[in-house]
Amino acid sequence: MKLEFWFEYASTYSYPAAMRVEKLAKDAGVALVWRPFLLGPIFGAQGWNDSPFNIYPVKGQYMWRDMARLCEADGLPFKAPVQFPQNGLRAARITLIGNDEGWGADFTRAVYTANFGEQKDISDEAVLVSLLISLGLDAKDVLARANADANKARLKTQTEEAIKRGVFGAPSFFVGPELFWGNDRLEQAIVWAKRS
Amino acid sequence: MKLEFWFEYASTYSYPAAMRVEKLAKDAGVALVWRPFLLGPIFGAQGWNDSPFNIYPVKGQYMWRDMARLCEADGLPFKAPVQFPQNGLRAARITLIGNDEGWGADFTRAVYTANFGEQKDISDEAVLVSLLISLGLDAKDVLARANADANKARLKTQTEEAIKRGVFGAPSFFVGPELFWGNDRLEQAIVWAKRS
Repeated sequence: MKLEFWFEYASTYSYPAAMRVEKLAKDAGVALVWRPFLLGPIFGAQGWNDSPFNIYPVKGQYMWRDMARLCEADGLPFKAPVQFPQNGLRAARITLIGNDEGWGADFTRAVYTANFGEQKDISDEAVLVSLLISLGLDAKDVLARANADANKARLKTQTEEAIKRGVFGAPSFFVGPELFWGNDRLEQAIVWAKRS
Repeated sequence: MKLEFWFEYASTYSYPAAMRVEKLAKDAGVALVWRPFLLGPIFGAQGWNDSPFNIYPVKGQYMWRDMARLCEADGLPFKAPVQFPQNGLRAARITLIGNDEGWGADFTRAVYTANFGEQKDISDEAVLVSLLISLGLDAKDVLARANADANKARLKTQTEEAIKRGVFGAPSFFVGPELFWGNDRLEQAIVWAKRS
């Protein structure tokens, strides 16, 4: 049974999950599917027009401290973004192209590192271009395909699928219909996939 | 360094934490302090007059499934309460008396088991009396002391302390000023306490 990894580039806890998921899945012999989506429409449906970590600042303050501890334990660079949340729309569109062509996982890790390890603005096309170039890709060509209407529609469809399947936050994992929410549930999801 | 375990009887994820915390702390050689408090005033300050799991039903639906999986993995009985959340005010007041007298931890586990393992109404004085009797206690005497004004004020003060120290949910753990939120963070909090 395969493991689906659903992630949003603005999501803090998706960062350690994105950096860990491939090795854990590989070690367990579980096939992995990377599925970028957008939390904006999902949060909007709950009446939130901002990250809940901004709407509830006491929870937000805790989250930044928790992230710092988690990243230290995982050996990941961590600097809180200057502006939070970052807009991951462009990066998510590019990721769909990358997933088709086998460089999606590397791009995803590069985007998360830029966002949460290097305080870069991942909504900035120039930042995304430099990440694509660092992966040896033709950035102009990739961007043109990422911004094509059909690809934009794909991301929208993917987000609608997330809503239909009960996703309410990121990261989320699916093993068949079974949903697991949060970086903390990655190990449990992998055990589930192995047993299924 | 001691580990403070802050819990609310209505809180689902406090149940597995309450059932695990004593053994984990003991095995690690960490002193444990049981601190009941009320989430109501904290949620109220965030504009919630109900559990967020009821306010956001998609998240609530996931939580019940997640709890069932967690309890199965921990070998704990689990039945969702007929009414959720339960009112844990009376049980919390009793717990303060129990913590003074050395039977607080046993009472806490009995209340959580009644709430989430046996679908009992833990706001019902008769239910609490039967739990006290099962621990060999003089229930009438305990209730009188639990309901004394000074003890009611103690619980209020404890909840105010939680707010002051940044608690926004349950279970929460403190090691000195360091806050850890959620059953998932229990192991990390214990490691922190051992290192401190």
